[in-house]
Formats: sequence, structure tokens, C-alpha cells
Amino acid sequence: MPRTPTAALVVVGNEVLSAKVQDENGPFTARRLRELGVELVTIRTVRDRVDEVSAAVLALCRQVDWVFTSGGVGPTHDDITVRAVAEALGRPMHRSPALVETIRALHRRGHPGAEPPEAALRMADVPEGTRLLGDEGYPTLALENVVMLPGVPQFYRHQFERIAHLLQAPPFRLACVYLSAGEGEIAPALDAVAAAHPAVEIGSYPRFDAGADHRVKVTLEAKDAARVEAALRALLAALPAGSVLRTEGP
Amino acid sequence: MPRTPTAALVVVGNEVLSAKVQDENGPFTARRLRELGVELVTIRTVRDRVDEVSAAVLALCRQVDWVFTSGGVGPTHDDITVRAVAEALGRPMHRSPALVETIRALHRRGHPGAEPPEAALRMADVPEGTRLLGDEGYPTLALENVVMLPGVPQFYRHQFERIAHLLQAPPFRLACVYLSAGEGEIAPALDAVAAAHPAVEIGSYPRFDAGADHRVKVTLEAKDAARVEAALRALLAALPAGSVLRTEGP
Repeated sequence: MPRTPTAALVVVGNEVLSAKVQDENGPFTARRLRELGVELVTIRTVRDRVDEVSAAVLALCRQVDWVFTSGGVGPTHDDITVRAVAEALGRPMHRSPALVETIRALHRRGHPGAEPPEAALRMADVPEGTRLLGDEGYPTLALENVVMLPGVPQFYRHQFERIAHLLQAPPFRLACVYLSAGEGEIAPALDAVAAAHPAVEIGSYPRFDAGADHRVKVTLEAKDAARVEAALRALLAALPAGSVLRTEGP
Repeated sequence: MPRTPTAALVVVGNEVLSAKVQDENGPFTARRLRELGVELVTIRTVRDRVDEVSAAVLALCRQVDWVFTSGGVGPTHDDITVRAVAEALGRPMHRSPALVETIRALHRRGHPGAEPPEAALRMADVPEGTRLLGDEGYPTLALENVVMLPGVPQFYRHQFERIAHLLQAPPFRLACVYLSAGEGEIAPALDAVAAAHPAVEIGSYPRFDAGADHRVKVTLEAKDAARVEAALRALLAALPAGSVLRTEGP
């Protein structure tokens, strides 16, 4: 079983932190990376400041295989992500001729024959060594293991999907156990199984709302289905009699 | 105008990172802190691991006035937040007699006359020096400037509201300008106003969906309404003629 690839997401998000907008790119990224077999190890939402974005990117790009950034790639004063990535990775900025052509072509679609304003051309200023991935419509910027995606959810998702094939890894295998007992009663069984099956990630999620048909959902997850099955068997044997409502998977 | 208090949120969130659950406590915290006049400077979602939670708490508790943690305070093996905070702040763990009594009282409500299982009493193990805030129903754990809240959204919100009065600061004042022009056309005006009014936070949020009645929303925000008004006047004077659809506030 090859090592599970890892990823981190940096949301450049004054608007999220100040509650003007609810972030959609974090939940989307979590879901899609899981489907692709990639482990998302952290999401950091930071302010639109070069030093804060740069510090987050620098810390994370050494810890994980892929760092995604969300937002801050437009033409205005608060779009500082690309500069912050250049700083984090110690690269000078330059104006990319290929991106200038892309921006010109996009501008002419809306304004036939016209040149884009200088401010729009700022979006062609990228760190030296930046790779242009994805499609020609608007390429995705990548430098080393950092992929810079736009903040607008429809563009984020579009650009993410254009590069998703680069990330694909073997899938996670998940089993779930739904219980009528509370966490306090099942904790000894969970302790024992978690200790004996360290390669399986075990989660315990209590429900307290009146509508729930169970009190706790236990999840067991790994890439190797046989390991999940072994941990599941051990857990079912260790749980208090009569506490299991149903199981799902792996 | 007193300094704006700052806060950070650490979401202890295997279930969020693996897309089993969508985090509700981040958006709630962002909204409530904004209403309370507190600046949320970052949200970090990390895995349920002592070292990762501890590193996040240690880094953030020196940078901001308040650190909130969400999740990982229950009785099972994956509930590692309280131990991680103890480690971050260099405090030994001890069993709190007051929390033992709370847990006993709660258990007896559901099981008259019965003692809670040892696993449930683990929730009384807290760092030395932990303060018990909020109400008696279930107290909120705080150590230095770190407030440890439960992950279940209804409990998170309940405990947050019990301590909200401790956070209250003067409100933010916000003005919004809705524009028919694109970001490329308004960038020079935004640059000039942002440079001349550094005490006002200026954001630019483009819309690309067919349903939007504007192309860009510009926000101007500070605690001092006079400063927001001055930046707003300067911006309205600098924007391209005919590009302003409407304004709101401050």
C-alpha cells in the first residue's frame, strides 16, 4: 500500500473571518480530496496580508504533498496571494507573457478590439517558475507544490477539477457503526481497539438532537479494507451487548 | 478608540477534514465575534492529534487575546483537546472535584442513583489552573486565554453565549458600495483609497453569477465611523463616473 498523499488548504479570507461570506471552498476541498484518496491534514483561514499568507504557505509546503490556496488572485489591492507565495518560496515576480495573452483574449471577448486596463494585467504577474496547469480558458497557477486557486467558488471548483487527475490515489475504505449507547459506555472498547489497530483511524461522533436514531456513530477508516474489517470485528466483539444498531461498510 | 481585541479559533476536526461533517462552529464564531466587536484573525482546522492541537494553541495564544477551541472534549480516545492545551501551556493535568460533581449530577439525571462510568469521569481531567466559566449546567473550561468549547454545535453555541459578555467591545462600522464596473476598472481607485486610509479595511468582492445585480461589492470597515465615512467619500470621488449602483452605511 503506497503512502497516502497529504494536502493542506490556505483560505485567504478576510471576508470569511469577518463573516461577510461563508467559505464554500473548504468543504468542497475536503470532500473532493477524500474522494481522490488524498488526506487533507489542515485548513488555515488567514487574513489578506502578505506576511500571514506567506507564513502559512511556507510552514505547510514543507509538511504536506500539496498546498492549495483559495482566493486573493484578482487584480485589486487586497489580492496578495500570488505575491505571498513568491515570498514564501523565495522567487522574484515577473510578468508571464502567456498569462498576458490569456487576459487579453478574455478582455477582448467582452470589449472587442480593446486592450485590458493595466490593473487587469497585474494578474499576469507571477513568481518565476510558475507552471500553468489545467485548461487554456484560464490556467491554474502552480509553483513547486503550491496550487493557487481563485476564491470565487464556481472558478475554484472549475480549476480544481481541471487538475484533479494529478492527485488521484487509492481510495479510503470506511466502516460505520451506529450505537444506542453513549460515549461514556463505549469508551473502554474504543480505547482498546484504537490501541490494537493503530493503522485504522477511529472516530466517535455523539448525537444529542431529538431527531437522531442513534446516540453515537463510530467510524473506522484506512486505505486497506482488510485492516478496516479486522478493526470492525474487534470493535463489535468489544462493545457492550445490545448496543449496536447497525453497521455500514467497508 | 481602544485597541480592537483579537481572537483565533482552532477546530479539532478529523471529521471536518475528512468531509464526514461540515463545520458549523467556524461560521458561527466569525459572525458572533464580529457582532461583539472582536477581530477573528485566523481559523485553523487540525487533526485530532495532541501534537497538532498543542502546536496550534501555543502559536496562537501568544498572538491573539482569545483562543477558542472547538471539539475534542468528550470521553473517548479521540478527545485530546484538553490534554493538548495542558501541554501547550505547560500545565499538569488533575481531576477537578467540581467537574466530577457536575458529571455525577448529569449522569444521575439519566440513571437515578447510579455512578457515572470511569470513562465519563475522564471529562473531569483538566489542566491545573483551569477556570470554570459560564453556567452550572455544564461549565466552560478556560485556561489563561484559551477557552475550550465542545464540538457539537448546539453545545458550542450554548457555552459560547454564556461567556460572550466577557468579550464585548465597541462595534465595527461597515459601509458597502455596489458597482456596475469590474475589478480591473476600479482597481486604481481602490489602490489610492486603501493607501490613503490605512486604518480602514477595504475589501473587493466580485460577482460572476448571472443572478447578481452588481459586478463588485466594495466594503469599508473600521471601528471609527468618521474614518469609514472619510474613506467612503474619497472612494466615491475616485471611482469611474457612473459605476456606483448604490451605497449602504456606515
